Amino acid sequence: MPGNSFGTLFRITTAGESHGPGNVVIIDGVPPGMELSADDLRPDLQRRRPGQSKVTTQRKEGDEPEILSGVFEGRTTGTSIAILIRNEDQRSKDYADIKDKYRPGHADYTFDAKYGVGNRDYRGGGRSSARETNVRVAAGAVAKKLLRQWYGVSIVGYVKQIGPLAADVPNPENVTLEQVESNIVRCPDPAVAQRMVDLIEKVRAEMDSIGGVAEIVANNVPPGWGEPVFDKLKADLGKAMFTLRAVMGVEEGAGFGVATARGSQNNDLFTTIDGRITTRSNRHGGMLGGISSGQPVVIRCAVKPTSSIPQEQETVTSAGEPTTISTKGRHDPCLLPRFVPMGEAMMAIVLADHCLRQNALRKP
Amino acid sequence: MPGNSFGTLFRITTAGESHGPGNVVIIDGVPPGMELSADDLRPDLQRRRPGQSKVTTQRKEGDEPEILSGVFEGRTTGTSIAILIRNEDQRSKDYADIKDKYRPGHADYTFDAKYGVGNRDYRGGGRSSARETNVRVAAGAVAKKLLRQWYGVSIVGYVKQIGPLAADVPNPENVTLEQVESNIVRCPDPAVAQRMVDLIEKVRAEMDSIGGVAEIVANNVPPGWGEPVFDKLKADLGKAMFTLRAVMGVEEGAGFGVATARGSQNNDLFTTIDGRITTRSNRHGGMLGGISSGQPVVIRCAVKPTSSIPQEQETVTSAGEPTTISTKGRHDPCLLPRFVPMGEAMMAIVLADHCLRQNALRKP
Amino acid sequence: MPGNSFGTLFRITTAGESHGPGNVVIIDGVPPGMELSADDLRPDLQRRRPGQSKVTTQRKEGDEPEILSGVFEGRTTGTSIAILIRNEDQRSKDYADIKDKYRPGHADYTFDAKYGVGNRDYRGGGRSSARETNVRVAAGAVAKKLLRQWYGVSIVGYVKQIGPLAADVPNPENVTLEQVESNIVRCPDPAVAQRMVDLIEKVRAEMDSIGGVAEIVANNVPPGWGEPVFDKLKADLGKAMFTLRAVMGVEEGAGFGVATARGSQNNDLFTTIDGRITTRSNRHGGMLGGISSGQPVVIRCAVKPTSSIPQEQETVTSAGEPTTISTKGRHDPCLLPRFVPMGEAMMAIVLADHCLRQNALRKP
Amino acid sequence: MPGNSFGTLFRITTAGESHGPGNVVIIDGVPPGMELSADDLRPDLQRRRPGQSKVTTQRKEGDEPEILSGVFEGRTTGTSIAILIRNEDQRSKDYADIKDKYRPGHADYTFDAKYGVGNRDYRGGGRSSARETNVRVAAGAVAKKLLRQWYGVSIVGYVKQIGPLAADVPNPENVTLEQVESNIVRCPDPAVAQRMVDLIEKVRAEMDSIGGVAEIVANNVPPGWGEPVFDKLKADLGKAMFTLRAVMGVEEGAGFGVATARGSQNNDLFTTIDGRITTRSNRHGGMLGGISSGQPVVIRCAVKPTSSIPQEQETVTSAGEPTTISTKGRHDPCLLPRFVPMGEAMMAIVLADHCLRQNALRKP
Repeated sequence: MPGNSFGTLFRITTAGESHGPGNVVIIDGVPPGMELSADDLRPDLQRRRPGQSKVTTQRKEGDEPEILSGVFEGRTTGTSIAILIRNEDQRSKDYADIKDKYRPGHADYTFDAKYGVGNRDYRGGGRSSARETNVRVAAGAVAKKLLRQWYGVSIVGYVKQIGPLAADVPNPENVTLEQVESNIVRCPDPAVAQRMVDLIEKVRAEMDSIGGVAEIVANNVPPGWGEPVFDKLKADLGKAMFTLRAVMGVEEGAGFGVATARGSQNNDLFTTIDGRITTRSNRHGGMLGGISSGQPVVIRCAVKPTSSIPQEQETVTSAGEPTTISTKGRHDPCLLPRFVPMGEAMMAIVLADHCLRQNALRKP
Repeated sequence: MPGNSFGTLFRITTAGESHGPGNVVIIDGVPPGMELSADDLRPDLQRRRPGQSKVTTQRKEGDEPEILSGVFEGRTTGTSIAILIRNEDQRSKDYADIKDKYRPGHADYTFDAKYGVGNRDYRGGGRSSARETNVRVAAGAVAKKLLRQWYGVSIVGYVKQIGPLAADVPNPENVTLEQVESNIVRCPDPAVAQRMVDLIEKVRAEMDSIGGVAEIVANNVPPGWGEPVFDKLKADLGKAMFTLRAVMGVEEGAGFGVATARGSQNNDLFTTIDGRITTRSNRHGGMLGGISSGQPVVIRCAVKPTSSIPQEQETVTSAGEPTTISTKGRHDPCLLPRFVPMGEAMMAIVLADHCLRQNALRKP
Repeated sequence: MPGNSFGTLFRITTAGESHGPGNVVIIDGVPPGMELSADDLRPDLQRRRPGQSKVTTQRKEGDEPEILSGVFEGRTTGTSIAILIRNEDQRSKDYADIKDKYRPGHADYTFDAKYGVGNRDYRGGGRSSARETNVRVAAGAVAKKLLRQWYGVSIVGYVKQIGPLAADVPNPENVTLEQVESNIVRCPDPAVAQRMVDLIEKVRAEMDSIGGVAEIVANNVPPGWGEPVFDKLKADLGKAMFTLRAVMGVEEGAGFGVATARGSQNNDLFTTIDGRITTRSNRHGGMLGGISSGQPVVIRCAVKPTSSIPQEQETVTSAGEPTTISTKGRHDPCLLPRFVPMGEAMMAIVLADHCLRQNALRKP
Repeated sequence: MPGNSFGTLFRITTAGESHGPGNVVIIDGVPPGMELSADDLRPDLQRRRPGQSKVTTQRKEGDEPEILSGVFEGRTTGTSIAILIRNEDQRSKDYADIKDKYRPGHADYTFDAKYGVGNRDYRGGGRSSARETNVRVAAGAVAKKLLRQWYGVSIVGYVKQIGPLAADVPNPENVTLEQVESNIVRCPDPAVAQRMVDLIEKVRAEMDSIGGVAEIVANNVPPGWGEPVFDKLKADLGKAMFTLRAVMGVEEGAGFGVATARGSQNNDLFTTIDGRITTRSNRHGGMLGGISSGQPVVIRCAVKPTSSIPQEQETVTSAGEPTTISTKGRHDPCLLPRFVPMGEAMMAIVLADHCLRQNALRKP
C-alpha cells in the first residue's frame, strides 16, 4: 500500500497529520557537500504558511523546521536528511461536529471507506489535511538549491487565474519571484492581481470559496531529462501536481488548447540560436517525447475552490443519517496564493530526481 | 534511470521499438487461477491497430500477441506473464531523411540530447513511437479482466472532442462499448461523430492534422482505492495518461472547470441511496482525497494533433543546419480514435494496481 | 542512490546519525485499527540499548521513542507512522582523533571514498554507527505485533556461538523469550551462557573483542509467503540481515552444512500430520523455492568482533600518512547480545512485508 | 507481490518457465553507445547450459538468445533491452508423476500453498526451475561488459568445495577465467578438481547428489560503491545470491570465520601503497560499512545437493496421501559447476547497479 514516498533517486518520504505532534520528511538522495541549514527552508515555508495575508486563512501552524540528520557542520553528508516541523498547537478543539459528519468535497468519507470507520484522525483533516505539504515545501527548497547550484535551474510559480479573472502573462519564462511576491495573491499581472484580491474578499464575505489556475515554470532545465516510456518528465510532473490536494487538472505547454489546434500550428519548429538547437516557440512546454527540450518547462494546475465553506451544506453522518454541516474554522477562501510554493516544490523535487537519473548515464 | 516499469503490485515492464523485432511486456502481479489466452487480448489490440478505418493511418503493424509465460493450461499461474508482439515488417525503408533531421513535435532532438547523437534508433521513431503501446493495450486487457471478475469494474473510453466539435455526453457512466464502437471515430454522440469524420477527412486533405479530447470512465470502482499522499488514485491516473504520447493535459471530474467555480457549487453533497452513502453529483470524478468514492471515475485527456504532417516544415539537422522536412509516411490525421483503447488500458492498469494494494490491507 | 528504505508494502525509511539530534523512522504500510503506543516499542528498545549489562558497552544513548504520526487515540490509522528517538547527549566530545584517522574495520575510509573527504559526520561513526538500528528495532516491534495479531507468528533470536563456545540448541522452535532473556548474553543454553560471559570479560580485559553467531527463528509463519524469483523469502531475509553492521555471513536452515551433504540426507521428506502437509525435518529452514513451507523459519548470522578495540592499531590518516589509533570510547567487547533484537526486528520487518504481499493475492 | 524485478538503476525483470515457450528478460538502465550483440551473451550461456560435460545433466535446453530491442546497428540505444531465449522442446513429456506428488526439496508444495492447488505449471518445475537463470546469465553478460568498459572490473567465479573436497585458493584475486575453465568442475586448484570430478561420478553412480561451495570474486571495483543503510553492497550481493536456487548460505570475506576471531586479528589495517590508501589484508571481502573499499569483492555461496535424485523417496500427494517418488529425468548430480556463471551474473548485475547509483552523485 505504501504511498508516502515519491521519487527514484531524489526521494522524499513523509508522515504527519494536521493535529498530531508534527510532520516529518526524510529526503534520500541529496548529494554531499551542499551547504544547507534551516535558513534555506524558511523563505518557502513562509510563503506557504497560513495567516500570511488577508486573503488566506488566519489559522496558526507551527512552521519552524528542525533538521534532524544528514547535515554536518553546515553541509550535507550525502546520507538521508530528516526534517521535522512540529505542529504548534495540537490540542484538539471541539471536533465532535466533523468526527461523524462527512464534509462535502473532503476525504472524510473515502478515508473511512479505505481504512475502516473509527480509525480516522478527524482533527483538522488528519493526514488528508494540506498541513502535510509543509515538509514537502521544505524538501522542495533543498531540491531547488541543488538544481540552482548544479545547473542554474530556477523555478517560479504564480497565480494565473482566479474565478473568471485571468492574468496576462505573455512570457512565463520572464516572471520573477519579486513580481510574484509583490502582491498577496502571487499574480505577476499587477492590474489583475488587485481585482483578484477584491474577488476573494467578496467571495469570503459571501461565505463561499473560489477556484483558480496556477502556472509553474522552470528555466534553464538542460535538454535530456526524463525517462521514457513511463517516467517521462511530463508524466512525473503530472503525477507530482495531482498529489497536491484540490488539483483537478494539469496541463503542460499548450495544454487543452491542443484540442482545437492543427498540427501545422501546434508544432514548434526547430531552429539554431547562437549555435544551440532550440525551437522558435514553446507550445510543447519544454518537453518532447517526455524529455526536456531546453525550453522552459511550463505546467498549469486547476485548483478547486476550498471545500470547507461557512455556508450550511447538506450531508450525511458516518451512519448514513442526513444532517447539515458548516465549517466554523478559519479556511482559505481561495487556495491559489498558498498553492504556488507547493507547486514549485513538487516541480523542484521531480526535476532534482531526473537530474540525478540523467547524471547516472554519464560515462566516467 | 529505469523508466520502463509502471505500477507497484500490478506492474508492467516494457521494451521494444517501432522497427525492431517486436515489443514485449512483462506483467507482474496477476493473481493465479484466472482464465487467459490470446483471445482475451485481441479485441483491444484490434481497436488500437493502424489501418482499421479510413480515419486512421493505413500503416501495417504486427498485432498478433504471443503469451510466453505465466499461463498454464489456459489459466494464470500467479507468476510473471510475458507477451510478445512481433513487428510484421521490420525492414527499414529509406529513413535517410529522418536520420539526421529533427522532426518538429517529435522526440528526435530530445532523444539525441539524452542518449547522445548517433545512438538513436530513428526508424519510425524507434522507442518513442506509439508502437510500444501495443503491449500496454495487451496488458490493459489482462487488467480489465481481473477488475471485471473481482469487482465488476468496467472501463469505457471515447472521443469527447475533435477540434471544435464537442460531443454531448451528459451521462458518462451510461456510455457503452457498443455505442463507442458504432462509429469509426469512437464518439458516443452519433450526430457529432459523423461531423468528426468529415472534419478529419478535410484535415487530411489539407495535409494537416487535428487534436482532440478523450474521456475515460470506470464504473463500479469500490470506494477506498488510492494511497495517500503520493500514490493517490488521481495522481497515478494522471501519470498514467501523461505517459501516453501526445497527451498535453489531463483532467479529473470537473477538471479546469473548477477554476471558475464557487465551493458552494462545486462540492458534491453526500446523501444515502438504498442504504449506501454516495454523492448527489460527480464533479469530483469519483475520487476524493485521491481515494475512490464509489462514483464513476472520470478522466479526460487532451491529445495534440499528430506531429507528422505531409506539409513541408522548417527544421534543422542534428548538426544544426537549417533544412525542411515533410512526412511521407502514412500517419493518423487525428490520434483520438486509436487513443481510446490506450487510455482505457492505462486506466485499467492503474486500477488493477490499486485494487491489489487495497487488498493487502484486509485482515485475514 | 537512495538506500534508506526497505520493504515493498510494509516499508521503513530511516534517517539519523550517532551524534546528531536523533534518529527517525517512517513506517509505511501498517494496517489501520491496531492498538499501538510507545509501550509496545520499549521492551525491544531496552534489549537493544547500551549499558544494559556488564558485557555490553556502558555508553549512554537516548532511547525514548516518540510516535509522531499514524496513531490516533491509541490505534493505527493506516497512514504512515513516524517514530523519533532523540539522542540524549549530542555534544561532540573530542573526536579530533578519529576525524582524520581511518579506524580499521570501520566505514570511515569508505564513506570518504563515497561522499568525498570532508563531508563525513565522524562523531561516533555518524550514519555508519549502530545507533541507527534503534529505530529499526522500534519498527520491528510494530511488525512483530502485526504478525502476532494476524497470524500468531512469534520471533525469537538468541546467541548461538561466541568465539569457540557453541550453544546446544536442538530445537530452535522451542526456545522462548524468557530463556533468552534469562542471562545477559541471550544464550538459551544456560551452561554455555555462563562460559560466554566469562569469555567476553576475559576478552575485554585483554583489550580485545570477539565475534559470534546469532540464530533467529520465526514460528507459525503460514506456508506461501515469499515472491519468486527475486523477492524470495530467503533472499529478502538474507538482505535484511546483511544490512546490519558487522554481519559477514548468513545461513538459512542447514546453511553451509549443505556443502558436505548428499541429496538423500539433505532433502526433508514430506508427510502429513493431523491432516496438514509438512516435512519430517527442517534442514530447509522453513523455506522451499524461497517460499515459506510452514516449518519454522531459521536464519543464522555471523557477526564479526567489534572493530573498535582499546589496543593500538596501525592505520593511516585521510591524507595517507601512517599513524596509530586506539579506541578510547566505551565499546561492546562482543556485539552478539545486543545484536539479537536487531536481527529479530529485521526478520519481523521482512515477514510483515511478505504477509501483506501475499495478502494482496487473495480473491475478494 | 511483484518479485520479478531486481535492481534500482540497472534493473532486470524476467519471465518464463522451464517448459513454456521461453524465458525473457528486460534490462533497464543500460547506458547508450555500448557495442552489443548476441555474441556477447553466448560465452556465459555456454558455461551455464546443461549437457556441457559428463558431470552435468544431459538435458537439452534452448540457449540461443534473441535481442528484441534496445540495440540498434550493433550498439545500445539507452532504452530497455529485451532478450528472449526460446525453450527448444516444450512438449510436455509424461509429468503425471510430479503433477500431484510433492518432490522433496523442491518448491512444488510451497507453490501450491502460495498460488493455490491446480494453478502450478508442474512441467520441469515451471517457474521454480533453474531454467529461468538463463536470461539472468544473459543480462549478467551485459552488466559485465559495462563494468569492464567503464571501470575495468572483472568478475570470476569458481568452485571452492564439493562435499568434503576443498580447493586451496590462497589468492582469490589471481584466479583467471582460463584456470576456471580448464576443467569441467570449474575449480582453479587442478589437483582437487580431478578428485571433485571423481566424487561427482561416484555420487551419480550411487543415485545421489552432493553439495558444495562457490566463490565469486570481483577485481578493480572502485571504492565508494554501495548505499547505506539498506542497500549496502554486501546486502544487495547477499540478496542476489540468495535469489539463486539451492543457495543456503552466503558469506563475504572471512564469513563465518569471524565468529571465532578476535578484533585484533580480524581488523584489516589500513596502509598506503603507491600513494593509494588500501588495507594490508582482505578479511573484509572488499566492503566496509557496506561500501566497496577497493579491495577485491569476495563472496561465497553454499549450494545444496540437487533435490532431484533417482533414489526412491517418501513423500505425499497434493491431497496429503503418502506415496514415493524417484526422479527419472536427467539431473545434475552436483549443481556447482553450472552455478558458477549464475553467481557471476548476479554479482555483475549488482555491481552494475551500484556503479550507476554512485555515478548519479557526481557533480556535473
